[in-house]
Amino acid sequence: MQKFTPILVLCLIGFGFSNLSEKKYIQKDLPIDVRVENLLSQMTLEEKVAQMRMFHSGLGVGLNKRDSLAFSKGVKERLNYGIAGIKSPGDRYSPERAAELNNQLQEFVIKNNRLGIPAFFVTESYSGVDAHGCTQFGRPISLSSSWNTKLVKEVYDIIGREARYRGLHLTHSPEADIARDPRFGRMSETFGEDTHLVSEMIVSAVSGLQGDSLGLESTHIGAVTKHFAGYAQVSGGKNFASVEISPRTLIDEILPPFKAAVVEANTLGIMASHGDINGIASHANPELLTNILRNDWGFKGYVVSDANDVGRLHYFMKVAETPEDAVRLALVAGVDIDLYADDAYALLPKMVETEPALLEYIDQAVRRVLRTKFVLGLFDNPYTDVQKAKEMTRNDAAKALAKKADEESIILLKNENTLLPLNRNKKRTIALVGPVIDSKTKAAFEKIAGTDIDFIEEKGFNLTNGDGVTPILTPKSETLKGIQQIVDKAKQSDVIVLFVGDDKYTSKEAYFSGGLGDRDNIDPVGQQDDLLLALKKIGKPVIVALKHRRTLSINIIAAHADAVLDCWELSEFGDEAIAKILFGDVTPSGKLPVTVPRNIGQMPIHYSQKEINFKKSYLFSESTPLYAFGYGLSYTTFKYSNLQLSETKGNTTSTIKVSVEIKNTGTRSGKEVVQLYIKDIAGSVVRPMKELKGFKKIELEPGESQKISFAITPEMLKLTGLDMKQTVEPGQFEVQIGGASNDVLISSFNIEK
Amino acid sequence: MQKFTPILVLCLIGFGFSNLSEKKYIQKDLPIDVRVENLLSQMTLEEKVAQMRMFHSGLGVGLNKRDSLAFSKGVKERLNYGIAGIKSPGDRYSPERAAELNNQLQEFVIKNNRLGIPAFFVTESYSGVDAHGCTQFGRPISLSSSWNTKLVKEVYDIIGREARYRGLHLTHSPEADIARDPRFGRMSETFGEDTHLVSEMIVSAVSGLQGDSLGLESTHIGAVTKHFAGYAQVSGGKNFASVEISPRTLIDEILPPFKAAVVEANTLGIMASHGDINGIASHANPELLTNILRNDWGFKGYVVSDANDVGRLHYFMKVAETPEDAVRLALVAGVDIDLYADDAYALLPKMVETEPALLEYIDQAVRRVLRTKFVLGLFDNPYTDVQKAKEMTRNDAAKALAKKADEESIILLKNENTLLPLNRNKKRTIALVGPVIDSKTKAAFEKIAGTDIDFIEEKGFNLTNGDGVTPILTPKSETLKGIQQIVDKAKQSDVIVLFVGDDKYTSKEAYFSGGLGDRDNIDPVGQQDDLLLALKKIGKPVIVALKHRRTLSINIIAAHADAVLDCWELSEFGDEAIAKILFGDVTPSGKLPVTVPRNIGQMPIHYSQKEINFKKSYLFSESTPLYAFGYGLSYTTFKYSNLQLSETKGNTTSTIKVSVEIKNTGTRSGKEVVQLYIKDIAGSVVRPMKELKGFKKIELEPGESQKISFAITPEMLKLTGLDMKQTVEPGQFEVQIGGASNDVLISSFNIEK
Repeated sequence: MQKFTPILVLCLIGFGFSNLSEKKYIQKDLPIDVRVENLLSQMTLEEKVAQMRMFHSGLGVGLNKRDSLAFSKGVKERLNYGIAGIKSPGDRYSPERAAELNNQLQEFVIKNNRLGIPAFFVTESYSGVDAHGCTQFGRPISLSSSWNTKLVKEVYDIIGREARYRGLHLTHSPEADIARDPRFGRMSETFGEDTHLVSEMIVSAVSGLQGDSLGLESTHIGAVTKHFAGYAQVSGGKNFASVEISPRTLIDEILPPFKAAVVEANTLGIMASHGDINGIASHANPELLTNILRNDWGFKGYVVSDANDVGRLHYFMKVAETPEDAVRLALVAGVDIDLYADDAYALLPKMVETEPALLEYIDQAVRRVLRTKFVLGLFDNPYTDVQKAKEMTRNDAAKALAKKADEESIILLKNENTLLPLNRNKKRTIALVGPVIDSKTKAAFEKIAGTDIDFIEEKGFNLTNGDGVTPILTPKSETLKGIQQIVDKAKQSDVIVLFVGDDKYTSKEAYFSGGLGDRDNIDPVGQQDDLLLALKKIGKPVIVALKHRRTLSINIIAAHADAVLDCWELSEFGDEAIAKILFGDVTPSGKLPVTVPRNIGQMPIHYSQKEINFKKSYLFSESTPLYAFGYGLSYTTFKYSNLQLSETKGNTTSTIKVSVEIKNTGTRSGKEVVQLYIKDIAGSVVRPMKELKGFKKIELEPGESQKISFAITPEMLKLTGLDMKQTVEPGQFEVQIGGASNDVLISSFNIEK
Repeated sequence: MQKFTPILVLCLIGFGFSNLSEKKYIQKDLPIDVRVENLLSQMTLEEKVAQMRMFHSGLGVGLNKRDSLAFSKGVKERLNYGIAGIKSPGDRYSPERAAELNNQLQEFVIKNNRLGIPAFFVTESYSGVDAHGCTQFGRPISLSSSWNTKLVKEVYDIIGREARYRGLHLTHSPEADIARDPRFGRMSETFGEDTHLVSEMIVSAVSGLQGDSLGLESTHIGAVTKHFAGYAQVSGGKNFASVEISPRTLIDEILPPFKAAVVEANTLGIMASHGDINGIASHANPELLTNILRNDWGFKGYVVSDANDVGRLHYFMKVAETPEDAVRLALVAGVDIDLYADDAYALLPKMVETEPALLEYIDQAVRRVLRTKFVLGLFDNPYTDVQKAKEMTRNDAAKALAKKADEESIILLKNENTLLPLNRNKKRTIALVGPVIDSKTKAAFEKIAGTDIDFIEEKGFNLTNGDGVTPILTPKSETLKGIQQIVDKAKQSDVIVLFVGDDKYTSKEAYFSGGLGDRDNIDPVGQQDDLLLALKKIGKPVIVALKHRRTLSINIIAAHADAVLDCWELSEFGDEAIAKILFGDVTPSGKLPVTVPRNIGQMPIHYSQKEINFKKSYLFSESTPLYAFGYGLSYTTFKYSNLQLSETKGNTTSTIKVSVEIKNTGTRSGKEVVQLYIKDIAGSVVRPMKELKGFKKIELEPGESQKISFAITPEMLKLTGLDMKQTVEPGQFEVQIGGASNDVLISSFNIEK
């Protein structure tokens, strides 16, 4: 117990103050720590434990199913002692109605518990606030493809505002996971494969959601960065599977985005990861949840379990012999809030009877929860402005931003004979076809294209039967019929735009009970390759718009399509951006946030693997990936030259500047992502091939040049050495700058002892 | 230096004795340690370093290319100070001629160095001694499929004898690596995926080679168990790639076969692994090479580098800034002999001038090498008996053993409508066809089949162009022509035996410079599936004999062949065993030493993964493997019943007995592998689905029953706990016994505190 001495002191201070004023915690002008201790000192055990639990409004509680607050007796009883938070209240209603209902619900919560402690209302945000009426932005993997941190921050700023105005306070997002296995169904919820790119995106996302820590009390919400840690490293890409990882890789490659969320962006919450790391369940891992997160990084927020994961330590992970053991493990490790379970932290009051030592951990958890409620202004201003919810949600500015983000996120992978952009003034018919076209695609294209283009469309077939739980691939016979319909329609056109990839069932979270979403194959599902080949036989140009949620091995598309736009999953207005790029209103500027393999057998394929991993290729197979990390074409061209270092020697504390000139050598204005990679030539431990350490997105007019500089700091040269400590080791380092990980200028410098 | 105090004491004792007699080391009756110290005390630095280097007879030395000992000047100079050993001398000659040449070479070595120190002559043995004229047994993966440890030990006993009689003393075998990624080209050199099975096989192999430590001085050779450690865990299955592994998995699953080699079988040598473990190069890993290997396990032998790997710490692994750094790292970590390099330990005499502290490490390494030479009797009897080399190599007993091992190694995967065994008394024509048939197949079948069967054969095509360095797949057009030839020939038959799988180029070691052997796909190469489907159209029964070196995803074969024999790579007489099984002279009894996946995207697929890895399956795909670990059919049937435990409760030191009855319920005598699995229901760390902990191969006559017992010891229940120490944790354990990992009877017991 020795390690909690500072908290004990605070506790005593708190008790001291509580003698002065019973309701000190409602005084806005007092420091938050004082308010927390005052409130805590007045709470019963049951009230404390209630602040360590969270319900889902749709699970038994029924809050999101009815347009009233006529709670069942069960709901009322659940809230008798208060509650840490409620997930997704009002998510099926319009922003203003949700705001009204959430205000009513908050009022009920406050009045229903003795001390009037308000509840968190919590959402998720994979592509905007996960609630009716909110702006739907592109998915994180799509946003990351923009390589535009400012833009991404603006997107999350809007998400934060739209959530707050409808009465929500927290989101169980963003995901700081490093996705390197495209079999994993949740890949699109991440920002990609690279530690630095993901870290930058996470800082943008958390800062945006939280209003740069300034709007937390009124206009913004708390971010709950997840899944801590290593979630996307699940064995075989299967949800809930174990994670096997080198401790050094964990520190150097997996943890940094979380560290950035805590240290740079001050995330209010952290959600633990379902599984384990190297045998230790993440919900029972004090090294991770306390030593690294709090002692090393100084995290002050709260840790929430993933859904039901405290109880699962017993019945699923089987690292706890009893439910009580599960509770104890999680609590002591540092899980402050138990999400959803009725058989986990709910056991604490009874457990404390025989284990009073748990009380200290309970107080510690409750402090963290209450602190967050004070930081979010819940005590001082628990209600939202219904009128503002209406005005500020999905307004013109939000829609414009969603479109802008789409325009910067689309990646041009191929443009044979500069087929693109298409001339909108040439009279012709364009066929919009394929299984992932949606009902708004044609209208979007018509809006952008002008009057000289006629559009015809044919979806042909669905990829699956559309069952979210256990989707079944559409039978081949039906698909072949659909292909023939598409071919027949496409024959009437001059140019074909083919939409292929994933529907929303072919790459998704594989939920705990029922529901699959991971795949053992990353070829496009069904007969989509055959569809492309059939269309190519018509003899018209075929432009592929790839809409997908996991990296696909698009060998056939890459070889046979005339042009390929990688769109991942864009916003609700995504087709407009695709049309704008097709007609040249926008010059594409997205870059791949992942390495694209030729087949699943090439995994792992990420560019930043150890150099020795690239020494041997496979028999009868190409050794390169299909597309390199950081790759993406433009309608213009950029020439890199004059790579210069401020010095070629330094010591372990030196900052070295590197500059390069980029010139737009084409005929259009365009944006380019200038990428800085560093390669440590030798180290005490085996070193990566190269690592992204910086990037800048710039815009250049035709003929325009710009000199771009990066400061190479000691931090960028650090590795986790033999002693497991981060250090800069003397030796030679290569600096590589270019427009893709495999297209760079190279120079080098030496760090001396 | 403190830790080498005992050695320093020994050293002083040595010096003391050396005053009494300069040539004490040649006195047979003195203890080996005394002889070692005496010799060491008389050696110059150059002579010591010479005992830390080994040459390959074919690399520059030219010893295996000419039938004489007319050495070049260069060779003589290399041997002026003596040498630790020479690899593969005389490997192209007959046993007796090799013996003569090796005697001459040894005589030359002895006379050419001042102190008359003999050299090790070293071979490898993936399928028998890797030298002309020696018996070629099945590969380790095939031997392991027999699950017959006694038989495997007999095989390695013969290998040890055949090596020793031709004048060799050591073999750089066996491989204790755990092969779980069939992309890796060296899979067939291992004993499979399972820790316990591989450990048992390794003990059999090392004990066999070393003559149970009794024949080491004259009839047997030293085993150099490799590759320490984690070699088969290379990322992506690519040779030389990095190894990412949980420290707990390393201890619990990867190291035990090495520990068994040291502790149970007393292996004389250990070879380090090419790559790294979690960033630390295995040749520069003192934790592995000294703390675990010597301090924990008590290893007394020597550690040899893999080919050139000391130097590669610098120029390949890049964990050493200079060649000298590489030498220092390897020496201090515990690498005693540098294999092949001219630019690694050769640098030591010069390095010692400025780093005298290295001398102690040099002495330590030389002691270990000299000790091994004394243990092997090299000083006392350095020459071999040429006549015995002739008599004892590839004699009738050896050939019979090779055949017997084949017969027990073949695994019957499928036998639709009990097609097999074939009746040899029914007049008919059998077609032997397919690309991996060899020139002796037809003769072998004719020898076994008797007179009523006519055989016709057609190879049709080769899988590759047969270039060992960069094999190219035979063009599809040529293959299709070959398929037609096969179909035309097969039409003339009543039954078709189709030989498909790998040739020797499609799965092999991917050498350092040039040469590929790993694959990113585990489907049968080329159009072999099409060949089967074409043959099936004829309407005759098709029996597939699968000859291969890596696990293949044989979905088409499993679905369409009438019977499937999995033969891996058998001995030089392998086709005889296949024929014997086809005609029922032998009842198949092999069991899979690996789990067979449906496709590479299912990896990892091994049965002993964490239980949580089996909770989710993939979309649009079967969740099970194609064949389970331990699976294999017989021509008879076995019924398991009456699973009984001696007690259902115990404590952490209890041994619990479990027994089961197995009855041969069929009409033929047959062998069965009774497999014991244990499942730890819960633990402090996430536990495996189940783990093999024992097996017994028994033979039963029709109707015969046998009761088989296993003692479940505390050792079998151990796990590496949160504190990284091995421990038995109280709780429930399941006992599973059956004829395959997925076909078991289950009971359970509790371990109490």
